[in-house]
Amino acid sequence: MRTLHIPLGERSYEIRIEQGLTGSQVERICEHIEPSAVTALISDENVWRLHGESFGSALKSAGVSFTEIVLPAGENTKRFPYLERVYKSLADMRMGRDGTIIAFGGGVIGDLAGFAAATWTRGVRYIQVPTSLLAQVDSSVGGKTAVDIEGGKNMVGAFYQPAFVAIDPDVESTLPIREIRAGMAEIIKCGAIASEKLFDKLRDFRLDKVHEDEFEDILYSGCKIKRNVVAADEHDKGVRLILNFGHTFGHALEAKYGFEKYNHGEAVAIGMRMASRMGESMGITQKGTAKAIDELLARYSLDIREDASSLLPFIKSDKKSEKGGVKLVLLTQIGQTEIFFISYEELESRLAELDSTWQ
Amino acid sequence: MRTLHIPLGERSYEIRIEQGLTGSQVERICEHIEPSAVTALISDENVWRLHGESFGSALKSAGVSFTEIVLPAGENTKRFPYLERVYKSLADMRMGRDGTIIAFGGGVIGDLAGFAAATWTRGVRYIQVPTSLLAQVDSSVGGKTAVDIEGGKNMVGAFYQPAFVAIDPDVESTLPIREIRAGMAEIIKCGAIASEKLFDKLRDFRLDKVHEDEFEDILYSGCKIKRNVVAADEHDKGVRLILNFGHTFGHALEAKYGFEKYNHGEAVAIGMRMASRMGESMGITQKGTAKAIDELLARYSLDIREDASSLLPFIKSDKKSEKGGVKLVLLTQIGQTEIFFISYEELESRLAELDSTWQ
Repeated sequence: MRTLHIPLGERSYEIRIEQGLTGSQVERICEHIEPSAVTALISDENVWRLHGESFGSALKSAGVSFTEIVLPAGENTKRFPYLERVYKSLADMRMGRDGTIIAFGGGVIGDLAGFAAATWTRGVRYIQVPTSLLAQVDSSVGGKTAVDIEGGKNMVGAFYQPAFVAIDPDVESTLPIREIRAGMAEIIKCGAIASEKLFDKLRDFRLDKVHEDEFEDILYSGCKIKRNVVAADEHDKGVRLILNFGHTFGHALEAKYGFEKYNHGEAVAIGMRMASRMGESMGITQKGTAKAIDELLARYSLDIREDASSLLPFIKSDKKSEKGGVKLVLLTQIGQTEIFFISYEELESRLAELDSTWQ
Repeated sequence: MRTLHIPLGERSYEIRIEQGLTGSQVERICEHIEPSAVTALISDENVWRLHGESFGSALKSAGVSFTEIVLPAGENTKRFPYLERVYKSLADMRMGRDGTIIAFGGGVIGDLAGFAAATWTRGVRYIQVPTSLLAQVDSSVGGKTAVDIEGGKNMVGAFYQPAFVAIDPDVESTLPIREIRAGMAEIIKCGAIASEKLFDKLRDFRLDKVHEDEFEDILYSGCKIKRNVVAADEHDKGVRLILNFGHTFGHALEAKYGFEKYNHGEAVAIGMRMASRMGESMGITQKGTAKAIDELLARYSLDIREDASSLLPFIKSDKKSEKGGVKLVLLTQIGQTEIFFISYEELESRLAELDSTWQ
């Protein structure tokens, strides 16, 4: 068992990593719930089928009565019709300001339930129980909540911190291997931007022969790196941008394929390959870095190559784009970053160069 | 010209009260806009018809180019279909995080545009130009933004502070008298809860013979009282509750009549009459207070009487209600309040008593 404190003043909270959603882990969750008030548990059909009964009865044994809202699995759930359905259910339960929303699922459920918690009566208590590796390492720190609209992914959202996050590494065993790989891409990113030590540790890590404690350790290291960055920049106005390494190209790739061909982690993996190559050719990234990243990604079958030039229009529509250009996060070497503003003109020729030289 | 500073740490801002939306007032607005980024101006059809051309050309002369989003007037606009329409327009404009939303209208436009600003890309700059007396004195301080859902008014929202508020008392001259009266109810409430001096000043005030400076002064006093309360409790967890004087009954009345019979100010006026009567009969409010409030409200034709007992179910569904009862704001005397938790059981008999004794 490990805990990580997220220091954000009056919005501080704990992440607790422990095998199994039972016993002391569930007791800690219940400490954050007002038992006389309304509690809603939001999940998706897949997670609920696999883990709903055991987690639900553990909560009930600990004295928490709740109403579940079970939504279809998939990115499409992060849209207005489902958000409205959630609000309708909360109204039917008569949840007031003393209520609690528990998000029990992956990134989609976390983002949607978190946004509902941020906005229901202008904010109710929010507890995250992320059940995908990506959500555990990516959305458990940072307080970003969002829904998608037709005009773009995550265009509507809020910064809203949970009261508590409970992570169970055991749930990985029920995840499809492609989802585990997607999570590993975010952990590799954490190493690449801030910790050569974590990066090296991941080289010796084997998904098929992993010991439980090792997995807990990797999760903890990933969350801790993200914690250190977020604590310095809660509202994403400065240093937090380094978490975006691989994401400028990754988001564009997701958009290009209508969020169908690649999942977020795969897209970020390709984005990291692009950004490290571009960084080397610009003389910012130490030679050999792209190769090191490629080799590590290959261990998780994430060494995918994609056309770069076609991404430009999608980069321009990203919500982080600015007039005339975009801030790129580049590595100087493994564990260190530099933020570099690049005009769309230069970016266009750099993307073309990348396509012509990428072997 | 008067300015009021709202001290909320890094979310501090200024309210500037000046006749006319031209010259220096518009220049101050423009100082808060990034000229190279996208600016959206959200208004309603009535306000836009009356003031759109002059305000729009003043902004353009000051170097701000913007796109307007003009919505139907009325409470129904504060619902999801219109919120989605606003998001769609912002996406079409390609507004990024450096964008600005200007709310140019009454409370409905302010609440809706403010919520859009709070949530678009997790927050863009927000400037309020309230054009009704109620919005000027009530929603310009406090950072409450919201939309309505089928299950209730303002059930979905966010606390989000504007970057600047520009108030033009001149627009009152184009308001229907019923709207001015509604605004006066909120100003009377400010006096009742926190300033005997303001309360007394309002006794000598005549709507039909008011001098411009006097009106500026009244507006400033109302905003200042609200400022003092909000600065001590930004997220509405404690002392801010006193602003709710007359609102527990007022909200219930609005809900009972489907938000059609009374506007917000009228409902609050009736609520204040009920709360001061109930307070007197409970021995909390000084005798004679209800009469003083009645007389002042009568000057603005707000001395309306309504049945109290029928409000109980609507009080129970209010988002501020708690299990078993509700916190009532009562006056001890003009200018002073006490918060009193009352069980639904006691409330029921107090409401019946009110109906049977109210002459």
